[in-house]
Amino acid sequence: METRKYNFSAGPGMLPLDVLQKAGGEIQSWRGSGMSVMEMSHRGKEFMSIAEQAEADLREIMEIPDNYKVLFLQGGASSQFAMVPLNLLCNKGKAEYYRTGSWSKKAIAEAKRFAEVTVVADTESDGKFTSVPAEGAVVHGSDAAYVHYTPNETIEGVEFPYIPDTGNIPLVADMSSTILSRPIDVSKFGIIYAGAQKNIGPAGLTVVIIRDDLIGNARDGTPAMFDYKIHADAGSMYNTPPTYGWYLAGLVFDGIKRNGGLKAMAEINQRKAGKLYAAIDASSFYSNPVDPACRSWMNVPFTLADAGLDASFLAEAKEAGLITLKGHRSVGGMRASLYNAMPEAGVDALIAFMADFEKRNG
Amino acid sequence: METRKYNFSAGPGMLPLDVLQKAGGEIQSWRGSGMSVMEMSHRGKEFMSIAEQAEADLREIMEIPDNYKVLFLQGGASSQFAMVPLNLLCNKGKAEYYRTGSWSKKAIAEAKRFAEVTVVADTESDGKFTSVPAEGAVVHGSDAAYVHYTPNETIEGVEFPYIPDTGNIPLVADMSSTILSRPIDVSKFGIIYAGAQKNIGPAGLTVVIIRDDLIGNARDGTPAMFDYKIHADAGSMYNTPPTYGWYLAGLVFDGIKRNGGLKAMAEINQRKAGKLYAAIDASSFYSNPVDPACRSWMNVPFTLADAGLDASFLAEAKEAGLITLKGHRSVGGMRASLYNAMPEAGVDALIAFMADFEKRNG
Repeated sequence: METRKYNFSAGPGMLPLDVLQKAGGEIQSWRGSGMSVMEMSHRGKEFMSIAEQAEADLREIMEIPDNYKVLFLQGGASSQFAMVPLNLLCNKGKAEYYRTGSWSKKAIAEAKRFAEVTVVADTESDGKFTSVPAEGAVVHGSDAAYVHYTPNETIEGVEFPYIPDTGNIPLVADMSSTILSRPIDVSKFGIIYAGAQKNIGPAGLTVVIIRDDLIGNARDGTPAMFDYKIHADAGSMYNTPPTYGWYLAGLVFDGIKRNGGLKAMAEINQRKAGKLYAAIDASSFYSNPVDPACRSWMNVPFTLADAGLDASFLAEAKEAGLITLKGHRSVGGMRASLYNAMPEAGVDALIAFMADFEKRNG
Repeated sequence: METRKYNFSAGPGMLPLDVLQKAGGEIQSWRGSGMSVMEMSHRGKEFMSIAEQAEADLREIMEIPDNYKVLFLQGGASSQFAMVPLNLLCNKGKAEYYRTGSWSKKAIAEAKRFAEVTVVADTESDGKFTSVPAEGAVVHGSDAAYVHYTPNETIEGVEFPYIPDTGNIPLVADMSSTILSRPIDVSKFGIIYAGAQKNIGPAGLTVVIIRDDLIGNARDGTPAMFDYKIHADAGSMYNTPPTYGWYLAGLVFDGIKRNGGLKAMAEINQRKAGKLYAAIDASSFYSNPVDPACRSWMNVPFTLADAGLDASFLAEAKEAGLITLKGHRSVGGMRASLYNAMPEAGVDALIAFMADFEKRNG
């Protein structure tokens, strides 16, 4: 077996090694069925058992209330950017959005095709996003169909340390890069959606957790594939779902369940991020621009004091088995994504490498 | 390694064993990269090389002209049912559809959300679909934005033995269950689309082959994810594509290339289907209702003279390692899907089992 590396990709990101091992071991035949999960009819009893177990496990680890449906869809968060307004606007034309980074900007741009968007908070300053509004600082209008925010901005590494209180207005969250990183109170949300490729499974699967009363109001002219009701009524099998991604997600959920659930994940994630931020803050060679009150546990952008060293940092890191550390072009520098599947040993190795690199170049 | 079975699923269907073996062998680390293909950033050089090779191989085996784009999307044929009218109607409100089975019915129902649909041919008779219009029998109106048809109806096992001549009107084909089964002249089409889960790869990937001049005309209010131009301009990476499916599709394309291309596939497929139809026709115990001129190479539905024997046929077939033979509920009886990955030995085994079952029960 070839050596695995510590892969800090922002997504698609690392998957748990035991998930890959299990998937590899049964790729030609799942539990005596004589077929790969990829080859199963989605309506057959084998895949139905996989699908149902995955949903049951996700409901258990996230403590999803019974009045929420869990949908396993395609199209990524980018599809949800349109599905949310198409399904939630009803007779109201207005929607409120928090603008706290690159992904909320994309959500806003797409929503504007369908809705009158009110940006209720905009934290851009000098072209950068490094903070979120103070808790309680945003007042929500009663005429909004919903409020949308991005709890964790993958590119900027900015994270809300609280859930906005929107009263009776449904709160919609793009949790692509933070879902399953810690326990959350699902009952505070109208919709939670997440592309799978960070903390859930492979790209091509999108999980949507939606409160029952928000289903069934798609506007006229909505494509069937963008209507939550059609997917909810069909148990996410209106058409052929991304079966292999659903199966892998199930393996991930099962692993979280067996390893102490989201509370245990939160402890590890907080510790992983905490030690990396501590190392950055203790150095004048590295820096992170984000307000310490809203630094992301999942995505840690950092810059070198001398950007001229970026290329050699990346090359030497790669030699040391630490890969995909290059920051997003809009932010520059480095970004270490520390999703659930990144072992704590990977963070330790990164910190040690950073110290050594600083010693040699600082 | 557990025994593989002959899986006659209509989709998701069998994948070539060597593709599963290769994927399993590198599931923890692709070619020394230290990461699974599932874990790769879609914008990194590793995945880019996989993606580009897959497209190049598909272009080679299908001989796709340079004025066509190849898109690797999500959402299945069901998403294309909406994307086609949303992108092709332009100022024309009309579209023409052939109605030859369950899937063209679904395409029509979805198109009606957006277009004035003219059904130019309807082969339903007594609630069944068993034929296609005679070649040249359908006249196309010059005011149609496009003509849509379903070259192979997966559920009914009905296949067009010709490509409709639509003159200057773009021809759009749902080739989900027939793409890669034989050479086709791509230049006769405006758009060819196909869900991957029959002849291409795992569910969750959709391949769209579209002529350049049909890109860039999405109507106002089309979600970004449903706009061909957005995907074409971004090289199918407007958002995170279904990377693992794209990779597996590449392995399938490579296999076809190494094994004689689509001409070789066509010979094998014609032989596989031919011998099964011959066995059915030679028996009064089994029957297939489809006009012999338009019987599908890919999906062979058949009924037993005594439907009371269906359950024991299925149970005994399963014992013999022949699985997922139950017909679609709308047609009844059995259905043997003979996609590219079904070995000829699987068809031989099915025919032998059928003869034996008939001997014992006929």
